[in-house]
Amino acid sequence: MLNLGGPATLDEVGPFLVRLFADREIIQLPLQAWLGPFIARRRTAAVQENYRLIGGGSPILRWTTIQGEGMIRWLDRLSPATAPHRFYVAFRYAPPFSEDALRQMQADGVKRAVAFTQYPQFSCATTGSSLNELWRAARRLGLGNAFSWSMIDRWPTHPGFIEAMTRSVQIGLEQFPAAERHNVLLLFSAHSLPLKIIDRGDPYPQEIGASVQAVMVQLGFAYEYLLAYQSAVGPVRWLGPQTEQVIKQLGAQGRRNVLVVPLAFTSDHIETLAEIDHEYGELAHRAGITNFKRAPALNDDENFQRALADLVAEHLASGLNHSRQYPLRCPGCTSDQCRNLLNPVASPESVALAHDRQLRM
Amino acid sequence: MLNLGGPATLDEVGPFLVRLFADREIIQLPLQAWLGPFIARRRTAAVQENYRLIGGGSPILRWTTIQGEGMIRWLDRLSPATAPHRFYVAFRYAPPFSEDALRQMQADGVKRAVAFTQYPQFSCATTGSSLNELWRAARRLGLGNAFSWSMIDRWPTHPGFIEAMTRSVQIGLEQFPAAERHNVLLLFSAHSLPLKIIDRGDPYPQEIGASVQAVMVQLGFAYEYLLAYQSAVGPVRWLGPQTEQVIKQLGAQGRRNVLVVPLAFTSDHIETLAEIDHEYGELAHRAGITNFKRAPALNDDENFQRALADLVAEHLASGLNHSRQYPLRCPGCTSDQCRNLLNPVASPESVALAHDRQLRM
Repeated sequence: MLNLGGPATLDEVGPFLVRLFADREIIQLPLQAWLGPFIARRRTAAVQENYRLIGGGSPILRWTTIQGEGMIRWLDRLSPATAPHRFYVAFRYAPPFSEDALRQMQADGVKRAVAFTQYPQFSCATTGSSLNELWRAARRLGLGNAFSWSMIDRWPTHPGFIEAMTRSVQIGLEQFPAAERHNVLLLFSAHSLPLKIIDRGDPYPQEIGASVQAVMVQLGFAYEYLLAYQSAVGPVRWLGPQTEQVIKQLGAQGRRNVLVVPLAFTSDHIETLAEIDHEYGELAHRAGITNFKRAPALNDDENFQRALADLVAEHLASGLNHSRQYPLRCPGCTSDQCRNLLNPVASPESVALAHDRQLRM
Repeated sequence: MLNLGGPATLDEVGPFLVRLFADREIIQLPLQAWLGPFIARRRTAAVQENYRLIGGGSPILRWTTIQGEGMIRWLDRLSPATAPHRFYVAFRYAPPFSEDALRQMQADGVKRAVAFTQYPQFSCATTGSSLNELWRAARRLGLGNAFSWSMIDRWPTHPGFIEAMTRSVQIGLEQFPAAERHNVLLLFSAHSLPLKIIDRGDPYPQEIGASVQAVMVQLGFAYEYLLAYQSAVGPVRWLGPQTEQVIKQLGAQGRRNVLVVPLAFTSDHIETLAEIDHEYGELAHRAGITNFKRAPALNDDENFQRALADLVAEHLASGLNHSRQYPLRCPGCTSDQCRNLLNPVASPESVALAHDRQLRM
């Protein structure tokens, strides 16, 4: 289960930021080896303050563990032929790292592995970076041939995910007085990306747009809704509109009921708990938005665990190594590490057969 | 049937461009009344050259007329209770204008009217501008109370539209040698917008992303695909990636089979016939893309006429004035003309009842 990860304690904030600002798949800085740690150190105190606000650390490992355990329970039932299943967590910028997961997999005698991104929508800056790091880590450990790999690289409109998101919106709506509920604006908020990455041809905004539509279809388009992007930092231009700006503008327009729906992460993390709940919450209050609420993250939602199991079971049954889309590098890509798969489980011939089977269906 | 329109003859190119550059809902220039016509005049010769290339004029009125006639034939059958139906064409920048449509409607004794955008995805720069102009024109003519209005303001994932688009992709794929077909990259291309409009909160990119996903779902994700944006002009930054740039990059990556799929217009027009077929075709050839093809526009596709009729029949049966989303102004909107509806057919009470009915379904 690949994800960003987050610092578990305040002391881990510094190292977490150093790793984040060292990742050239997200951020490209001049003199990165020097400037990255410099920026990381400058931001540490402020980011620590945010983590203090949410209880002293990120809950992402706790939620991922609960999600993994639930997924495995379902999966053993859904796909007995491939049981027993186990899950391992590989975070990009905080422990447990890819190395930790791979070492434990080896110790447990694992042979067959699925790299399962926990980002529903694909971006080179998230899933792409995690996968590339996973293959590098396996090579660093001399485990390049230890496991037969396939991957689940995106699931922006998987029915189980969309159902879970829709339920989260409905739970979010229950926080509003019944008489106001039909006036609530749904503000879908996804993490933004620098336009430089968008202009390279990153698939993220298309897949985010698709997720929003799929949720709105489930809701019968019964509410007004907007899509905005949050968490832009630094001097370069990012994909908009910015969530922060939108909240101010909605307040100025006289909007009183707003439900923020984060849809690019599946667990609570600093961007939901600190940025949306605290920072944007205050902003909304000052802007006159009387009822500013957030749809809950999927966290320990049992139906979401079932959706994760469905995704894996469908993937295992497909006989494919990855989505048809995965090998397609961004048109503007310059990294030769992108879109690799280490030691694939399925041969090109069996993949071609699996595709034929799908096309005939 | 609201659309952009296009010059029917080379002599109409100049006036067409003057109207386009005068529309502050698309382009905001300093000293627009002077600078707009100046830019229009400077571009006229080059744009005339493009229209000469495609036969001396835009085919959009011809296709819209065929689409309207087919739609009406189906509609009289699908919704006999509201028959007989008629269609009128209202273009934004070329005849027939809103005034022409409205005068004819009055002459024909029409009482009930549906403003039906022919842009599947909503943008303030397209559908928004057309609707605002329609209401202004009605008021100019003293016809503010002549008709009871409702509108179909967006249909990015309507099943009939998506089926028609999917078929168009399949027809496009047949142009490739059978042995190459599974290697074809689908390059969805939509008209771009200045980032200034995107950052205001325009819904267009979200709805475009949803259309792409819906077509790919129908195709079983059997092909690699990309979404790019075409036709950016001028010095400001537009939403990317740019189709032109992407074509060059795909060639450089060694891609040999590309099918361009335009999905924000439903008829052939200058952007498909001149820009994609000629300009990008040459570009692709120089970049080494051996097989560069385009999926046909929906033009006289009979199934698309049925889809248009379905859209209207469903709308009439809904009892609604417009989508739930229509009244939502962009958070960054500053125009007080936006999101109006002249003389709505349904009262607020009957709309509330219709919504309740939908929610119970």
